[in-house]
Amino acid sequence: MATFEPSPRDSADIGVTGMAVMGSNLARNLARHGYKVAIHNRSVAKTEAVIAEHGSEGAFFPSESIADFVASLKAPRVAIIMVKAGGPTDAVIEELAEHMEPGDIIVDGGNALYTDTRRREAALKERGLNFVGMGVSGGEEGALNGPSIMPGGSPEAWERLSPILRDIAAKADEDGEPCTTYVGADGAGHFVKMVHNGIEYADMQVISEAYDMMSKALGMSAAEIGDRFAQWNEGDLESFLIDVTATVLKHVDARTGKPFVDIILDRAAQKGTGAWTVQTALDLGVPVTGIAEATFARFVSGDIAQREAAQKTLQAHTADEQITDPEQFIDDLQKALYASKLVAYAQGFEEIAKGAEVYGWDIDLGAMARIWRAGCIIRAKFLDRITEAYERDANLTLLLADPYFAEAINDCVPAWRRVVAFAAANGFPVPVFASSLSYYDAIRAERLPAALVQAQRDYFGAHTYQRVDAEGSYHVEWTRDRSETRTDGGEGGVTHGAVDPQAGEKMQEATTS
Amino acid sequence: MATFEPSPRDSADIGVTGMAVMGSNLARNLARHGYKVAIHNRSVAKTEAVIAEHGSEGAFFPSESIADFVASLKAPRVAIIMVKAGGPTDAVIEELAEHMEPGDIIVDGGNALYTDTRRREAALKERGLNFVGMGVSGGEEGALNGPSIMPGGSPEAWERLSPILRDIAAKADEDGEPCTTYVGADGAGHFVKMVHNGIEYADMQVISEAYDMMSKALGMSAAEIGDRFAQWNEGDLESFLIDVTATVLKHVDARTGKPFVDIILDRAAQKGTGAWTVQTALDLGVPVTGIAEATFARFVSGDIAQREAAQKTLQAHTADEQITDPEQFIDDLQKALYASKLVAYAQGFEEIAKGAEVYGWDIDLGAMARIWRAGCIIRAKFLDRITEAYERDANLTLLLADPYFAEAINDCVPAWRRVVAFAAANGFPVPVFASSLSYYDAIRAERLPAALVQAQRDYFGAHTYQRVDAEGSYHVEWTRDRSETRTDGGEGGVTHGAVDPQAGEKMQEATTS
Repeated sequence: MATFEPSPRDSADIGVTGMAVMGSNLARNLARHGYKVAIHNRSVAKTEAVIAEHGSEGAFFPSESIADFVASLKAPRVAIIMVKAGGPTDAVIEELAEHMEPGDIIVDGGNALYTDTRRREAALKERGLNFVGMGVSGGEEGALNGPSIMPGGSPEAWERLSPILRDIAAKADEDGEPCTTYVGADGAGHFVKMVHNGIEYADMQVISEAYDMMSKALGMSAAEIGDRFAQWNEGDLESFLIDVTATVLKHVDARTGKPFVDIILDRAAQKGTGAWTVQTALDLGVPVTGIAEATFARFVSGDIAQREAAQKTLQAHTADEQITDPEQFIDDLQKALYASKLVAYAQGFEEIAKGAEVYGWDIDLGAMARIWRAGCIIRAKFLDRITEAYERDANLTLLLADPYFAEAINDCVPAWRRVVAFAAANGFPVPVFASSLSYYDAIRAERLPAALVQAQRDYFGAHTYQRVDAEGSYHVEWTRDRSETRTDGGEGGVTHGAVDPQAGEKMQEATTS
Repeated sequence: MATFEPSPRDSADIGVTGMAVMGSNLARNLARHGYKVAIHNRSVAKTEAVIAEHGSEGAFFPSESIADFVASLKAPRVAIIMVKAGGPTDAVIEELAEHMEPGDIIVDGGNALYTDTRRREAALKERGLNFVGMGVSGGEEGALNGPSIMPGGSPEAWERLSPILRDIAAKADEDGEPCTTYVGADGAGHFVKMVHNGIEYADMQVISEAYDMMSKALGMSAAEIGDRFAQWNEGDLESFLIDVTATVLKHVDARTGKPFVDIILDRAAQKGTGAWTVQTALDLGVPVTGIAEATFARFVSGDIAQREAAQKTLQAHTADEQITDPEQFIDDLQKALYASKLVAYAQGFEEIAKGAEVYGWDIDLGAMARIWRAGCIIRAKFLDRITEAYERDANLTLLLADPYFAEAINDCVPAWRRVVAFAAANGFPVPVFASSLSYYDAIRAERLPAALVQAQRDYFGAHTYQRVDAEGSYHVEWTRDRSETRTDGGEGGVTHGAVDPQAGEKMQEATTS
């Protein structure tokens, strides 16, 4: 095993530990921007490989040990960790912290769960160290050529990091602005990155649903569908993922000469950030139907034993309607995709807003859309419209209620309804198209059957209900005389049956259902 | 404050601490079955109230302090905790444990999260105490007259508890069997109870969707709809929740003379077990679409500010189709409800099976359906069919693939498609009907667009894909020469471009998207 010359002390501007593809590309990005970059990896072979293959790209300061790595950094030191989330990240943090001094900054650039980031930030703060949980999106290419960067942590840490991150981040085509900004304290950066990934799940799924129907309902070839996506990429749907879709659909498998997508096993994997986004939304009370259905769709695709059992036993019973106007149908699919995508983004932004409220982060929602305009996977033209919507109203209750988006989605609704109705009648799975439409119809409904749910809950669990015509909480003595009792101890309003001022409290305790 | 005579030592058969409605009813249930029941509550007033109001029902042994309460129990002591989940439960466990002796049994009858139960069981086992996490379903009435009881813990604890729990549990109408059985180790009982509650969410939501369409699409009154539910309760849908629905829909509000359901505020609340079920399913990789959509529907209903904003801006653009045959439509709704319900139960049982696998619980799935036949909220005639399905095949991959259920759901499919298509075209939110149908169509699909998702993931994140025609994992060098590389280090299969045996490992580390 080769040994490097010891790197000079106090000389590197910034360090990166973890020389897998994301870490080495981020280090190269920094070096290419003129920074002196300390690099380190648990096994030295990867560090050597970076020097051997890319050493000429800039000033790299390799180290074999964490001690040397930290020593090679200028104070206040900045070390970016690019290793696996979870235990490996904790281990590296501990090693770094042992060698660092108060005021130094440890940056976690992996996909950490924001609650882990909060825990780590609090622990390191006690030791005088700054901890920055930094979401990085854009995959390998983004890390090398400019990712979207979502840092959370202290404002002081952001001040130190800001010029560097602005240099290496992607620049928006529209105005050249770097795709990074201060997100908020402790876990805010990783939280926003998590929701970004959740939105990405929904975005990919709606694209897949449109593709699936063009393929199966219209019998279009992958290349023909790819051409449509390329066309769509000229309009409101313009985005990296639509562009990628056009590219992969037009790609031909070299081995078989078949369309590439047709030789891929139809089991989608996942790395957990979609599930995290939904789990967090459930804690926060945010209905992320699109992200949830997209995550479940991946689960369904991966369970081969179930799919085989279902194919043998579950019948289609489809209406077998013919599409009489394929061009109209394709146009409808484009609108169903766009409307469902708008719902998914609206739900994602609601989750960020709710997270900010609960954790006390002062997140500028418009700025989040702005830093996603380049570098990241969900980069898209329409993100500027989201920024504008939050500029019009920073406390926008519902993104879809912004005039621009209301008009955009209203324009899609008839087509969206036709697509979901056709899919239901003819047996095409469109979990995100359909659930987004139900969400749309629920949120705009004057009255929801939730009233019946409350009545049921009051019947079997004494969970009480509210009235449309009076303040307070009530309960009906269902199995006795069906009198109505006010349970919150309030005055006013006719009550039937005795009022028990402790009833509200009783309901809270150990009610099970 | 009154003081009780000290209860005799070593004399009560079992104790209950927490005299809110569930705890006092459970204590009364025990006393009515001839058990000597020690009772205790943090504030003595509630204990006094139980004695004053129900003391004549049996042998109660009240105590003011936990020490006296424990001392009044015969060894090996059994104390059931019926207090709020979370911190209060931990506090009571600690107090009990301080006064108990090795071999004694602490039972938590609240709605604890199964991971908390696992933690508590492990901690108490180290102190020589048995801890039983016991799911209790049936609300107040069930606790008093016979709940469905789902105990987890050690087989020794079950041996001690079994005769008592069998006495106080609900008895199935069909065969008189008590609705309790040993579920499995540590958190198994609370896990199964959690999924029970999740299924309950979906069950209530599908009922609400059918009600909503009868109300809005057919203009039926609450009482008319109640009559239909009463009819449905004679057939395959026969269940407690359908019966409750018929009752509440036919109930008239005494204050206004209006249908009761119409004066209830349409915001459904929730106590978190639905969200837990979905969060756990996301960890386990189980697609619980019905439970998730039902939980989200409650969230949507509760966000008044968003609903008001949406009502002002989001347009209907509905097809305004008229229903020409209301009887046919009502029949279709019944089938849509039943099919969606079958999907939700199938998904719930899949979650239990997966949980059992992951946590090493030897859960008899058929027995879980059997102990839900009476006492609990989702008690229903068709649970016998689930038991039979698992008797036919204990390792059934997919409940819907069982011959009975496959036939049942196949019979519903044409009607189900008509309902979802009509709802989509005409603006009725049917999140569980629609998502269940998409799930059905996805799981039976020969080919899913998940292949496109994998292609996208490989493009932007180098996440690799599998081929339909060869073993191994592959990656295309999308932004270079588009050659295909085998990434799992395997032999065989033509590969294009250099094989990097470490590529698979690299993909695992710090890949972000």
